[in-house]
Amino acid sequence: MRRRQILDLAAVSAALATLQTLGGCAKDDGDSEQSPTTPRGENPPMQHIAMLVYPGFTALDLIGPQTAFAFSFLEDVQNHLVWKTLDPVTTDTGITLHPTASFETCPEELAILFVPGGMAGTIALMRDVEVLDFLAARAERATYVTSVCTGSLVLGAAGLLRGYRATTHWGMREVLPLLEAERVDARYVEDRNRITGGGVTSGIDFGLRIAAKMQGEEAAQRAQLVMEYDPDPPFQAGTPESAPAAVVEPVRSRLAPSVADARLAAEQARARW
Amino acid sequence: MRRRQILDLAAVSAALATLQTLGGCAKDDGDSEQSPTTPRGENPPMQHIAMLVYPGFTALDLIGPQTAFAFSFLEDVQNHLVWKTLDPVTTDTGITLHPTASFETCPEELAILFVPGGMAGTIALMRDVEVLDFLAARAERATYVTSVCTGSLVLGAAGLLRGYRATTHWGMREVLPLLEAERVDARYVEDRNRITGGGVTSGIDFGLRIAAKMQGEEAAQRAQLVMEYDPDPPFQAGTPESAPAAVVEPVRSRLAPSVADARLAAEQARARW
Repeated sequence: MRRRQILDLAAVSAALATLQTLGGCAKDDGDSEQSPTTPRGENPPMQHIAMLVYPGFTALDLIGPQTAFAFSFLEDVQNHLVWKTLDPVTTDTGITLHPTASFETCPEELAILFVPGGMAGTIALMRDVEVLDFLAARAERATYVTSVCTGSLVLGAAGLLRGYRATTHWGMREVLPLLEAERVDARYVEDRNRITGGGVTSGIDFGLRIAAKMQGEEAAQRAQLVMEYDPDPPFQAGTPESAPAAVVEPVRSRLAPSVADARLAAEQARARW
Repeated sequence: MRRRQILDLAAVSAALATLQTLGGCAKDDGDSEQSPTTPRGENPPMQHIAMLVYPGFTALDLIGPQTAFAFSFLEDVQNHLVWKTLDPVTTDTGITLHPTASFETCPEELAILFVPGGMAGTIALMRDVEVLDFLAARAERATYVTSVCTGSLVLGAAGLLRGYRATTHWGMREVLPLLEAERVDARYVEDRNRITGGGVTSGIDFGLRIAAKMQGEEAAQRAQLVMEYDPDPPFQAGTPESAPAAVVEPVRSRLAPSVADARLAAEQARARW
């Protein structure tokens, strides 16, 4: 097994090299896209992205932006999947994956701190002091503090959205004001260095927008092209406003117990502040 | 570590239960959505979905449809992540995940056989006789034989698209005719029981369409709503036709060596037939 893992890593490093030349701004382009403060020929400092993973998170919340970043970013950006330990975690759709950094080994200076959403597992995090303390500590020095879906409720429970405009999954927006955030009913919300996305698939739009901010529009457009992101949803059902009532009502009523629990978790978090 | 994995599984099974009542057609609804051939009160037989995972595949190709399936399907559908062995595999963006079934333990009767794409790792599979033989054997009895992105080139190398209309990632479509498939320049192509999607993000549209075929439109619409799939791409750059030429040309020229290698792999596959 050890030997096979080593072989897999060789395959992935070859694949990553291809991707970086595909989506990324290859450095042999002639016209450098390096920061104007970086002298030509010197390597800019390595930047770090930390994406939280945890039991019960929704994989697509994270894989959307992670793919947009990987297909647009320079080689001097490193992506970390961070959890308390390096033990594998299982998502809400049954994918078991490996963190690449623990809270202890996660770099302290981050370009992006990111929290994906979920349901029961995410509400559990709103009550997990170890997680909230880690997020608060890393957020202090992060360039962007971000989330997709109900990940914003975890940022909020850590006190990181107080006084900020923010969004979350459409079914959970009423929880935001309980965390002293200003609720915005939108798919993408940017307020100073806090960037929050709506439910699940919004992470793709979110990831491409952040890539454009950090790497320029052409890099983000290359990623969008490599991802063939020209969406063609089969139904008008992506929001409670556009979906048929017969579709919205059962989802809303089945969400209700989770919303009630998230409201309770928000009150408990505020009591800690 | 063993203990933590057990705890994680408990968390995920709770989360899955929530998801199934959220997206799925709960059986306590009163009006049964069971197949008309299934007598009321009897459980329909368990159906199996097998999604291939392998070193260097693109996670988003698989996570898109996997999420659409999980958020819309009934409890009598089981999803398997299948590889040669249960050893972890690492994707082209550096996600290391665990297969849940090996070629040996994968069920023989499948509702859906699915292959995600990638680049170097995918072309390697076009030359991997063990993989091609496995796919050909399971395809014989599968209700749907499917792929997203360059996954169709692997199906094609296994001889499974001969005489079928099919699509793939926009940059690789010229390889399809070499595999005796009829190239279609589209995001989603259905021909008898072969269903192929375009590049990476097309898997979300693909997953929702297949969910609708198998579970009915309302189930797929509930999944689309839970996934908040109301896309808002930041740029017009999702296809080579809509993206600026300055974006398309570098991607196309960097893809060229992979296209050449995939063409060669297709010729080698045909020599095997």
